Amino acid sequence: MREKLMEMLESRKEEMIEIRRHLHENPELSFKEDKTAKYIKDFYEGKEVDIETNVGNGHGIIVTIKGDGEGKTIGLRADFDALPITEEADVPFKSKNEGVMHACGHDAHTAYLLILADCLIQLKDQIKGTIKIIHQHAEEQPPGGAKSIMDSGMLDDLDAIFGIHVLPMAPAGTVGYHSGYSFNGRTYFKLRIQGTGGHGSSPHKANDAIVAGSYFVTTVQTVVSRKIDPLTGGVVTIGSFDGKGSFNVIKDSIEIEGDIRYSDEETQDVIDKEVHRITNGLQETFGVTCDLTYTPDYPPLYNDPELTSFVAEALDGVEDESITEVKEFPKMSPSDDFAYYLEKIPGSYFYIGCTPKGVEEPYFNHHPKFDIDEDAILVAAKAVGHVTCSYLNG
Amino acid sequence: MREKLMEMLESRKEEMIEIRRHLHENPELSFKEDKTAKYIKDFYEGKEVDIETNVGNGHGIIVTIKGDGEGKTIGLRADFDALPITEEADVPFKSKNEGVMHACGHDAHTAYLLILADCLIQLKDQIKGTIKIIHQHAEEQPPGGAKSIMDSGMLDDLDAIFGIHVLPMAPAGTVGYHSGYSFNGRTYFKLRIQGTGGHGSSPHKANDAIVAGSYFVTTVQTVVSRKIDPLTGGVVTIGSFDGKGSFNVIKDSIEIEGDIRYSDEETQDVIDKEVHRITNGLQETFGVTCDLTYTPDYPPLYNDPELTSFVAEALDGVEDESITEVKEFPKMSPSDDFAYYLEKIPGSYFYIGCTPKGVEEPYFNHHPKFDIDEDAILVAAKAVGHVTCSYLNG
Amino acid sequence: MREKLMEMLESRKEEMIEIRRHLHENPELSFKEDKTAKYIKDFYEGKEVDIETNVGNGHGIIVTIKGDGEGKTIGLRADFDALPITEEADVPFKSKNEGVMHACGHDAHTAYLLILADCLIQLKDQIKGTIKIIHQHAEEQPPGGAKSIMDSGMLDDLDAIFGIHVLPMAPAGTVGYHSGYSFNGRTYFKLRIQGTGGHGSSPHKANDAIVAGSYFVTTVQTVVSRKIDPLTGGVVTIGSFDGKGSFNVIKDSIEIEGDIRYSDEETQDVIDKEVHRITNGLQETFGVTCDLTYTPDYPPLYNDPELTSFVAEALDGVEDESITEVKEFPKMSPSDDFAYYLEKIPGSYFYIGCTPKGVEEPYFNHHPKFDIDEDAILVAAKAVGHVTCSYLNG
Amino acid sequence: MREKLMEMLESRKEEMIEIRRHLHENPELSFKEDKTAKYIKDFYEGKEVDIETNVGNGHGIIVTIKGDGEGKTIGLRADFDALPITEEADVPFKSKNEGVMHACGHDAHTAYLLILADCLIQLKDQIKGTIKIIHQHAEEQPPGGAKSIMDSGMLDDLDAIFGIHVLPMAPAGTVGYHSGYSFNGRTYFKLRIQGTGGHGSSPHKANDAIVAGSYFVTTVQTVVSRKIDPLTGGVVTIGSFDGKGSFNVIKDSIEIEGDIRYSDEETQDVIDKEVHRITNGLQETFGVTCDLTYTPDYPPLYNDPELTSFVAEALDGVEDESITEVKEFPKMSPSDDFAYYLEKIPGSYFYIGCTPKGVEEPYFNHHPKFDIDEDAILVAAKAVGHVTCSYLNG
Repeated sequence: MREKLMEMLESRKEEMIEIRRHLHENPELSFKEDKTAKYIKDFYEGKEVDIETNVGNGHGIIVTIKGDGEGKTIGLRADFDALPITEEADVPFKSKNEGVMHACGHDAHTAYLLILADCLIQLKDQIKGTIKIIHQHAEEQPPGGAKSIMDSGMLDDLDAIFGIHVLPMAPAGTVGYHSGYSFNGRTYFKLRIQGTGGHGSSPHKANDAIVAGSYFVTTVQTVVSRKIDPLTGGVVTIGSFDGKGSFNVIKDSIEIEGDIRYSDEETQDVIDKEVHRITNGLQETFGVTCDLTYTPDYPPLYNDPELTSFVAEALDGVEDESITEVKEFPKMSPSDDFAYYLEKIPGSYFYIGCTPKGVEEPYFNHHPKFDIDEDAILVAAKAVGHVTCSYLNG
Repeated sequence: MREKLMEMLESRKEEMIEIRRHLHENPELSFKEDKTAKYIKDFYEGKEVDIETNVGNGHGIIVTIKGDGEGKTIGLRADFDALPITEEADVPFKSKNEGVMHACGHDAHTAYLLILADCLIQLKDQIKGTIKIIHQHAEEQPPGGAKSIMDSGMLDDLDAIFGIHVLPMAPAGTVGYHSGYSFNGRTYFKLRIQGTGGHGSSPHKANDAIVAGSYFVTTVQTVVSRKIDPLTGGVVTIGSFDGKGSFNVIKDSIEIEGDIRYSDEETQDVIDKEVHRITNGLQETFGVTCDLTYTPDYPPLYNDPELTSFVAEALDGVEDESITEVKEFPKMSPSDDFAYYLEKIPGSYFYIGCTPKGVEEPYFNHHPKFDIDEDAILVAAKAVGHVTCSYLNG
Repeated sequence: MREKLMEMLESRKEEMIEIRRHLHENPELSFKEDKTAKYIKDFYEGKEVDIETNVGNGHGIIVTIKGDGEGKTIGLRADFDALPITEEADVPFKSKNEGVMHACGHDAHTAYLLILADCLIQLKDQIKGTIKIIHQHAEEQPPGGAKSIMDSGMLDDLDAIFGIHVLPMAPAGTVGYHSGYSFNGRTYFKLRIQGTGGHGSSPHKANDAIVAGSYFVTTVQTVVSRKIDPLTGGVVTIGSFDGKGSFNVIKDSIEIEGDIRYSDEETQDVIDKEVHRITNGLQETFGVTCDLTYTPDYPPLYNDPELTSFVAEALDGVEDESITEVKEFPKMSPSDDFAYYLEKIPGSYFYIGCTPKGVEEPYFNHHPKFDIDEDAILVAAKAVGHVTCSYLNG
Repeated sequence: MREKLMEMLESRKEEMIEIRRHLHENPELSFKEDKTAKYIKDFYEGKEVDIETNVGNGHGIIVTIKGDGEGKTIGLRADFDALPITEEADVPFKSKNEGVMHACGHDAHTAYLLILADCLIQLKDQIKGTIKIIHQHAEEQPPGGAKSIMDSGMLDDLDAIFGIHVLPMAPAGTVGYHSGYSFNGRTYFKLRIQGTGGHGSSPHKANDAIVAGSYFVTTVQTVVSRKIDPLTGGVVTIGSFDGKGSFNVIKDSIEIEGDIRYSDEETQDVIDKEVHRITNGLQETFGVTCDLTYTPDYPPLYNDPELTSFVAEALDGVEDESITEVKEFPKMSPSDDFAYYLEKIPGSYFYIGCTPKGVEEPYFNHHPKFDIDEDAILVAAKAVGHVTCSYLNG
């Protein structure tokens, strides 16, 4: 089956590229992917599969391919939403939707998975087990689509889940993997500090919110410097300190907003506890009133070590010209809601190199000039195809 | 002469009140007092005095009354500009100039001084020495009018200078004095901190301006707490911390604005030095670029102890029903550009009680509901009249 | 009576000096003034007065002189303890008690008051009212003697109380006064911060007491810079930060000791509240355990404005060659337990100039080379004598 | 040759244990290992090898085994110094040198290497290339022995270097490896801050060293929280803040001591730069004088990825009952001067599991109760033997 699948994929490389370009020209924001979802649904029109649309809190689509043979159940996920970025890449299939761009490669993810799914449908009689194709909406915008898809219960029977992300840190042909915690978790927080205003010459009659806020900022540095494991790391960034006012009037209130990153749950818990501690301490110390909004977004993404080794070995072992190198990638600082699947289902999220040919310093994901080597789409399809074959058919 | 002067002033009480109400209805902002200046000039029309208009950097007016007798030269100053405040006082002569208000009593200052000047002109033959009536523009708005009037050289021959301010902390009839440093000096500063922006998850690739700014705020607390004489006091207020941004983007720059108060020149020098020190230290510590605008406004106001005693004794000694009490007032935290005159000319700036009758908790100067007991205008005229008589004629 | 009293005092000037020198040679520490107390007691031996010894928590002595006339009851206080300082002054009557020195002038205080008391005893028939001579122990060492003498109830009948302090900031002949709050109040505090020790490379397994302590120090700066009235002033000094340890071991606990000064009770209350706030906030913020010992010593000393004017006028008015100038002195930063008397009894604590003749920069009180112009002793006796005469006999 | 070597090693297991126990009973501190060095030298007495003693800045010994065949040159290092720790382990061969203990396993390191060296000497005719046995002194005490041995030039001809460390985080039989940066680098620093002393009530006349020191501590938190890569990590610990003084006297100087950790050279450079920056900034900000002693000890230890893979594969591939598992170990926070060899010579420092049998929570290296499973000594000998065979003989 493997050989047949690879042949089929190779033969449909151009089709993958066309799909990708179509999606690229027609990007849609998270939770608003109406046309994209319809495009995907139409793709499966007439094919002998179960298709479920509007899964979760948006346009999620699950396509179930039941193989003729008995076996395990596997999930393959690709996300399909775009970003609120105005494209600056100079490509003929540039975004037609002003201010929206597939700047993260979800167009390529969806393109490879559609074709791979189609091929697998055609090979159903040879498949041992079941494949759930997960076309996920809204990865870019917390709360994301993944959590709601998990909550739908439709993936409860999965034995494993796999997904890929295109990354321009290696050329097309390279597949990367990382075991254990691999993407950061992230929390957004907002702290409103309410003191008492007053005239600049009479601080004792006021309660200075800027001073309280500044001590918050200096104190919160200790969370990273003293409270978390230095070998694990984490970040607490205050991105906004909104305390604009008149030079000679003591500010009555300010608002701080920040971004927290952590690569495992233990660190997440420590930072959570410490930021709340410092906030409570600030109220006590300065007699101000603090209103803290603390909203964890995506959790740290944990690749199952066993299945990650399985992926690495499966791909390292194959004889496939498209896959030129399989290697460990470093931990990544961004977040991805694939983490929600991995909280419950063992699996691995791995990387497909996509540096545009001839480019030495590629633009990274989320850059207005982000672009990929479209050869990577076939690599993705084949890599996920190999993993699927190995996992289900051995 | 004293007796005659007092009689004349008493007989013109109503006229003073009318002038005050006219000015109150027609307030003009600092440096824009066209009509007020014309009104004053017209008042002296036809009187036998020297009048100089457009003195200094605005509408300053100096009227010189030469007495027939030989003697010293004295300056009497009243300011005539208003504030950018929308009046909320419920008075029949409410401001007709929306958004502008005589909320500091300069209308009363000018009213008493016009009538006093007129009387003194009529008593010229009895005066030993010369009186310069200084109608000053733009007290409320640094750089103010006083400094430029001093720079004009027209007051170089003054032996002494006096002025008053109406204050609602005592009833009409009370005259207050304070020896030595009496009003605070003030400095405005703006600090722009330029770091380097970056993504919230990668602080090491950025240089966080909010963090640098917060350490500035916490460090600058030591200027007051450790560097200045605790028996003298001073204030450093950060009224504005403009660091609004996106929660997950490290801020590249922020802007801080502040207000500094001090009651003597030594403290002014210490604070000046320390704020510059801390700014330089911040650049070194955090590798940011600091752009500090440091603009002293009015200096601390220093009442000559001898002339202040002279005022206190002159007024304490007179038998005058209008002046019911003469007492020491505390140091004041606001600033007044009368300080510039006192840097060069010995003199005293003293206080005229003006709590509206029947009011227990009066609104203070600069409040939209500020109002005065108009009896205070006559008290002012008589108090300054007595001081003038005592000083020139003994 | 006044004339007679002054004559008597003048004639006993040498005796006063002898007493002072005797006391100077035989100084005793606070609460250990056995010989001094005996010396005082012996002085009154055989005189017709009531004498009460061991008043309060030490060697306090109260001598009651009942005048033949009816009248008010007045207290006159002099302290008699010395300091743990090794004398370096080059005088023939240098301390014989190694390490102990009358470096604050209490020897002069006691000398003048003994002779004044003796004279007043002899003039008893002319006195209208009662005089309580208070020889107070232990002024230098909190809790001091004054509070316990007040608590004895023996001064409950006082209408007024007076005392003086010699100060070398003016020559003998000058008497100084200050109305309202005049000497600072003082609080001692100790803060033990208990965290958790650990290896320097693993901060997350420890709870760093040095870091918590440092944030305490930086935060406590805001008490003076933001919480108290800048026109009143106050001081919070951390004199000791005991956090010595091994460079690569995280400190489990540190101890901070500090000194707080304030010139009125409102400021005392604010600082008290804020230091407790910051301590509680520190516990919350850093999860450390704080043990705060907060011990107010002497309160701010408040001179009754009416009685201070009374003193100033009484002395300014007299024709007495010994008293050459009567003037206002500034607020003082030290503390004195005379403040306890003034909390309950109206009175005034005033100053006797004592700069040694020919000295331009005298050593101040508490300096090992402190010395006085002994002429000041007679000035003290006469000044207090005048005040007594004026107060009781009018 | 490999088979022969393994047989020989197995037959001498008891001998290795005896040597280890002898060394354990007779531990010597760094740079004072006289008897240990003599013991090692004596061991080689009469054997056909080149032996060089007193290499470097202490008792370093290099034994050169020239194989009969041509080939590469390899270094094998074991350290032999002990720690200033009083042993609390309950073993029959407990330290006889009170206060000194082989609490880091260097006794086991030396034991295996002596026997391995002896076997290799006997197999000289089969060896292709040269083996330099490095018995290194003074690993525990910076500046350590390694740097000076490198500086001797005696290892200039090495193609590769290997060493092991026993670690009780896995049982005997497990061999651990880590590629790239593996042990932290470390810097010691001392900062003396000189201000100006003064009386607690007059901060403006002093320059408070405790305040300056506390701001140093709070500011230095930003080095870890903002300046270094959160995925790399690092630590700045202030272990000592020596500011003990009198509560009411402003401290003139304090001394801070600290410990810095980093896992790569880039981080080392960043921290170095930032601590110097903050120190310079402190001088500027507070007007104090700073005297900074900044002494990097051992650099981060970097295992050559290629040779680390070589080790992992060499050991994973062998059929050897003693070696039950070969796996990746995490990065370690301690430091080791093996890092100096690896700065110049490619190589790998790997780990030999040694959890005492039946113990679930073993005491770690440097603990007074540290102990090992002595089976680990044979594992070490065999592992290093295998690596040597693979590297030289292929």
